[in-house]
Amino acid sequence: MTRWWETDETHDPALTSWVASAQGHGDFPIQNLPLGLFAPPGQEARIGVAIGDMILDLAACAHAGLLDEALVAPACATTVNALLALPSHQRRALRHRLSISLSTSHHRAQVEPHLHVAADCTLHVPARIGDYTDFYVGIHHANNVGRQFRPDNPLLPNYKYVPIGYHGRASSIRASGVPLRRPSGQRKAPQADAPTYGPTERLDYELELGVWVGPGNALGHPIPIAQAADHVAGFCLLNDWSARDFQAWEYQPLGPFLAKNFQSTISPWIVTAEAMAPFRLPQPARPDDDPAPLPYLHDADDQQHGALALTLEACLLTTKMRDAGEAPTRLSVGPATSMYWTIHQMIAHHTSNGCDLNPGDLLGTGTLSAPTRDGFGSMMELSVGGTAPITLPNGETRAFIADGDEIILRATASAPGRVAIGLGECRAMVMAS
Amino acid sequence: MTRWWETDETHDPALTSWVASAQGHGDFPIQNLPLGLFAPPGQEARIGVAIGDMILDLAACAHAGLLDEALVAPACATTVNALLALPSHQRRALRHRLSISLSTSHHRAQVEPHLHVAADCTLHVPARIGDYTDFYVGIHHANNVGRQFRPDNPLLPNYKYVPIGYHGRASSIRASGVPLRRPSGQRKAPQADAPTYGPTERLDYELELGVWVGPGNALGHPIPIAQAADHVAGFCLLNDWSARDFQAWEYQPLGPFLAKNFQSTISPWIVTAEAMAPFRLPQPARPDDDPAPLPYLHDADDQQHGALALTLEACLLTTKMRDAGEAPTRLSVGPATSMYWTIHQMIAHHTSNGCDLNPGDLLGTGTLSAPTRDGFGSMMELSVGGTAPITLPNGETRAFIADGDEIILRATASAPGRVAIGLGECRAMVMAS
Repeated sequence: MTRWWETDETHDPALTSWVASAQGHGDFPIQNLPLGLFAPPGQEARIGVAIGDMILDLAACAHAGLLDEALVAPACATTVNALLALPSHQRRALRHRLSISLSTSHHRAQVEPHLHVAADCTLHVPARIGDYTDFYVGIHHANNVGRQFRPDNPLLPNYKYVPIGYHGRASSIRASGVPLRRPSGQRKAPQADAPTYGPTERLDYELELGVWVGPGNALGHPIPIAQAADHVAGFCLLNDWSARDFQAWEYQPLGPFLAKNFQSTISPWIVTAEAMAPFRLPQPARPDDDPAPLPYLHDADDQQHGALALTLEACLLTTKMRDAGEAPTRLSVGPATSMYWTIHQMIAHHTSNGCDLNPGDLLGTGTLSAPTRDGFGSMMELSVGGTAPITLPNGETRAFIADGDEIILRATASAPGRVAIGLGECRAMVMAS
Repeated sequence: MTRWWETDETHDPALTSWVASAQGHGDFPIQNLPLGLFAPPGQEARIGVAIGDMILDLAACAHAGLLDEALVAPACATTVNALLALPSHQRRALRHRLSISLSTSHHRAQVEPHLHVAADCTLHVPARIGDYTDFYVGIHHANNVGRQFRPDNPLLPNYKYVPIGYHGRASSIRASGVPLRRPSGQRKAPQADAPTYGPTERLDYELELGVWVGPGNALGHPIPIAQAADHVAGFCLLNDWSARDFQAWEYQPLGPFLAKNFQSTISPWIVTAEAMAPFRLPQPARPDDDPAPLPYLHDADDQQHGALALTLEACLLTTKMRDAGEAPTRLSVGPATSMYWTIHQMIAHHTSNGCDLNPGDLLGTGTLSAPTRDGFGSMMELSVGGTAPITLPNGETRAFIADGDEIILRATASAPGRVAIGLGECRAMVMAS
């Protein structure tokens, strides 16, 4: 059996597709083959696979007899949940079939009729998300934010023992491209006697990685860390939009609520765990003074392969830039290796009390900031809590996000001798309240 | 149009059913007619209505042509979500139809074949719960627990402005009767250098009221408090099982997570908002020194009718008591009027930032403790954080919940000149880890 970090012929850098735009495509070369839910113009949504600038209609392929019998029902469903529920060897079999179909010219005549131009299609949230959990594993983010509240002691005592997480809102997750309305809520200025209700004055983004859960576990049956890989179906980008003024006022004692549940934006393609196999790195060693993870959170393979060779990027397009025909400006770029806990540790911890994960559940990593300012993943960090607004190339300044601003997250996985793949764009514009 | 606190002929105390066991039934007289999802022995689950000791198969009634056309599809669905999505006048029409069918003897021959003996059936979680939110509106509970951490200042400054809430876990909610396994997790004794992983030593229950969401709102469109009633479909009991040792160690800074998501137990019948109409009370006045709610949280009708004339009760059955054939012992009994915020305030607040609520979402009130010890709704309060174990009538003592213990929650709504109705039992036994 192929282990989760092992590659095969579908990752061969010499492999090319007869879909011309796949060659050199920054996100979706034939080595990627992500799953999603798309609607061609005027038609119903169905499951598809991104290849270059095109989308392959998986349901149509199933109807045309191009898929294994076991994959027909999941491929024709109205969400990807049943595909995510498949054991990884079946998802791997689908990947092999797609790789061959899209690379071998003698399949072209059969497959090509089922391609759609991606730019004409609407991408949807691919799964029915049963539960969404957000973690806090970006240690530089935790340090940066903690320092603003507790300068001498930014990390709480539990941080290096517990992969801290909390439950988020599933209903308000939207796919890239859906604008969000500036939310109103309660906020209290430090000197004010009482709070007021109105539009947030401290709207922020958070650059996160999303993890799609695969088969999952039955209630009462934890997933041992050595088996956690079986339950990671794929990855996306996640913008955990946050209203910092609401958050500061509401979050004690039970955590973030209205500060974060008004909308979250995800990139709509599920880049599978199999596609990410070539882009695994050893988990960075903990500093000598840090405690070792408790045994239920330790696995040697996970330590050897649990980090991701991903470069994460956040960009901003303001109304002024858009009107001037300018390109988005980069707010930050950095590696995803700042996760103090691996994804497998997140899964083992989440289920360690018997909590059940289910196919299509979504996990967020929490903001992934690099150690230095050029890789900070939120305005809260870039503008030091709003006290030091940043200046954009066109002279505009930002402490937080303004109406008309668009935040664009991107991520690229790369490794020596491999064709890079991307997660696709995670983009949303802020509308006035 | 009938307003949410107004009664009609379905509430007539003189009304009786030809189902004999409905007369004098503590929970399900003909004035109640709650909705649920049940499976007769060896059969599939379907939607039903509790009447006395029987359950009426609503899908069978629909197939037999006994329901209005608009109700047929929702009544025949595999969950109650579509019924909850109905506007309240349609749910009210269903109630009228059921009330007449079950009270008028000339309908008996048509309807009686669709009754099942409740004791033979399995009750399920009635809805697909999209999102579950738990609030913290029981002010005596907040005071009691807060005092254990901050003796001089038990309530945080936001409590009297913000209906504090957080997102819980939807996947691990189970219907009454499903046992739960004692969860394992990280906990750190105050004097210990480091945490350990193992079964919780401080397992607790929390006596809460659950609220089933009706039609709900579109993302970005808050529900004004004057319209909140349109989105309350019904009520249940909720036991928010909690591992206090996990909670103390994990909850900073993002709130409860593994301490509460291992299992939550609900009573399986949805007692509709219409059934509760006779049991509304004025919301207790705030102490003079307390701030007035912000305008978006204030509605005169809500203040006049927003409280519930419910008596809540928690009972315990230990293994020793069970083996001796003894009845459960009462841990607490008290009124539900200790809610600092009304249910409509919870809904208006939850959506005030545009967050969308959807049919079948579940809201918990948080623990509803009475001001005095005989009405405390958790062991944390009864045993003062475990420092003062309680003695049961048979001589056993409890600081927290032991393996083999069963917690049974009950609630009765009563008002002068009205037939009392109940929410049905919310019961679960703790199994060893």
